[in-house]
Amino acid sequence: MTRAADILTTAPGDEGVMIFGPEAPLLLDGGGRIESLALAYRTYGALNAARSNAILICHPLTLDQNVAEPVAAGARRAWWPSLVGPGRPIDPERHFIICSNIVGGCMGSTGPGSIDPASGRPYGLSFPVITIGDMVRAQALLVDRLGIETLFAVVGGSMGGMQVLEWAASFPARLFSAVCLASAARHSAQNIALHEVGRQAIMADPDWRGGDYALHGVRPEKGLAVARMAAHITYLSESALTRKFGRELQRDGLSWGFDADFQVESYLRHQGASFVDRFDANSYLYITRAMDYFDLAAGHPGGLAGALSGARHVRFCVASFTSDWLYPTSESREIVRALNLAGAPTSFLEIDTDRGHDAFLLDEPVLTAALAGFLDSAGRVRGLQA
Amino acid sequence: MTRAADILTTAPGDEGVMIFGPEAPLLLDGGGRIESLALAYRTYGALNAARSNAILICHPLTLDQNVAEPVAAGARRAWWPSLVGPGRPIDPERHFIICSNIVGGCMGSTGPGSIDPASGRPYGLSFPVITIGDMVRAQALLVDRLGIETLFAVVGGSMGGMQVLEWAASFPARLFSAVCLASAARHSAQNIALHEVGRQAIMADPDWRGGDYALHGVRPEKGLAVARMAAHITYLSESALTRKFGRELQRDGLSWGFDADFQVESYLRHQGASFVDRFDANSYLYITRAMDYFDLAAGHPGGLAGALSGARHVRFCVASFTSDWLYPTSESREIVRALNLAGAPTSFLEIDTDRGHDAFLLDEPVLTAALAGFLDSAGRVRGLQA
Repeated sequence: MTRAADILTTAPGDEGVMIFGPEAPLLLDGGGRIESLALAYRTYGALNAARSNAILICHPLTLDQNVAEPVAAGARRAWWPSLVGPGRPIDPERHFIICSNIVGGCMGSTGPGSIDPASGRPYGLSFPVITIGDMVRAQALLVDRLGIETLFAVVGGSMGGMQVLEWAASFPARLFSAVCLASAARHSAQNIALHEVGRQAIMADPDWRGGDYALHGVRPEKGLAVARMAAHITYLSESALTRKFGRELQRDGLSWGFDADFQVESYLRHQGASFVDRFDANSYLYITRAMDYFDLAAGHPGGLAGALSGARHVRFCVASFTSDWLYPTSESREIVRALNLAGAPTSFLEIDTDRGHDAFLLDEPVLTAALAGFLDSAGRVRGLQA
Repeated sequence: MTRAADILTTAPGDEGVMIFGPEAPLLLDGGGRIESLALAYRTYGALNAARSNAILICHPLTLDQNVAEPVAAGARRAWWPSLVGPGRPIDPERHFIICSNIVGGCMGSTGPGSIDPASGRPYGLSFPVITIGDMVRAQALLVDRLGIETLFAVVGGSMGGMQVLEWAASFPARLFSAVCLASAARHSAQNIALHEVGRQAIMADPDWRGGDYALHGVRPEKGLAVARMAAHITYLSESALTRKFGRELQRDGLSWGFDADFQVESYLRHQGASFVDRFDANSYLYITRAMDYFDLAAGHPGGLAGALSGARHVRFCVASFTSDWLYPTSESREIVRALNLAGAPTSFLEIDTDRGHDAFLLDEPVLTAALAGFLDSAGRVRGLQA
């Protein structure tokens, strides 16, 4: 077996930052380019001799490259323990697992908080607007550098699922299988509206300073916290909130004021406050914008099926959750319909749960079993279990 | 016929502000009292000689006493033209229609923006936290002053429906019938969470100044606009947003920036900006708090049915809308179940529409027909059509 580290020149171990210079610029959908691109990434497990066991995981909006233990120094925790780890469907004992922070992110990859080499100052709003396509092209650079021609699987949920679909549209020949969870092939009007509220909350904060807060040594913490609170509600379902909190009070009796009387208020405030410690406000603007711009079928004469027509050899697993009102099952069904039209072998699963959109991040036994079965089956065809 | 104006001493016509002094203080659920209470109200039509044709309309969160034309000078427009007006189910030709701005509001009734007689300055956060029960007791003072013993009907949607339920619990003997639309007998965890986001957005705005913005000649416009944008999304359904806006752009092509690219963004920004011109931020805090505190069954040994047990003689009409995810049909069903247990004659209607919560304010022919039939039938029993 060749460990990935053996073939890397810029990163010494299982984690690192890959730098792409002007020799491999990232060409952007918006027309510009990034000539000095850093991609922070982690790998888990070892690449086999045939280089056929690599799984790329695409992270959702506010997460990062720390998909499994051990996480990078200073990172919070591994965010997908239910699906990624020893004995899990995506297993470092069998798979070579790659996860990189997206371009535009704030966990080590180039984003609006990075120093613009042209000015020597943080980009702020001079950072180019990026797309899901740009994120995926950056990942393709990383996969190239890791010496991998074809990925055994590309896997993601929510915004990660959008990247999976974009991989299938842009680089179908480099995929053997693909897993798209709780996602959509385009952002709906309601999705855009919800994101716009978050952006307006950030930009309304005077500490945002037109995006140049880093130059002033401040951060739009209140605005970002409000954005997170609004978004967090959309990640849960009404019944999950009722089950977890109902109308339970923080203390005996009401405050008859504007303190957090109800436990759900306190929980939400905590979600907002802890988010600002780990996330950059401008990255939030750019990444939500990329999601809003996402519409895989746009410009394709054959619509979504046309966009995915090159992926008819790719084995797909698509899953949705009954209580997910952010990316409801109808969105997954549209993806499945297009894959069927394109002729791609597709498994589709609607999982009954009251946990809402975030169910894809949680321990959902039906999802775990389905993904294990799907990847085992694909692995046998791929010859991984030989 | 006796026109209401004939029996008023403090208001000369069909509109006015009723003042209640220390002789009739408003005792508050929170323990305090308001000794100088102003209630801005409008009436339409004439009270009949038997004083048996009065309908009280309870307004929702951000609306006011201008339920029908003609509206007060400076008011925006009549907000319930589909249900209230000549030839409509609630008809000034047949009914004496009363609508008052709630206590805590900002359209002429006493609220946090009013001058505190004790200090001579605007109350701000020294205004007492009020409840749906307080709103209803204030309305009862007004109904007393208008010389009306029993209301032919009390009618409201959303927060107005909460007031209707509170009337049925607190003053059942004063009701002949009651209409509760798109509402709930208590605020759910999700409802509370959504309101908390709006409050945090307002309080995060430095121009809020701890609630004392009026003293500083500023207003927390950005925070209030964000609160309104977040709330407005909850008043619509995903399919209504898709039907109205989809992913339609404002201009040809994307801006590749943070302008309003999509029509839904522009619409939402407009909703936020126009709201701050007509609503007071502190009133928004107080009214949302009152809704969050609402839980009609709390403290009643018999639960919701126990709270409504005095209203078994009241004829109820309850309606919900299939696409209303803010106060879904399940909430109305709980009300109906309790009314059935209490023994009150109850009509229940779930109306199939994709227009979301706001459907109760829009021209929904099924609702209009149902309400007309319900009130006609009740009116015959009441002897109004004699």
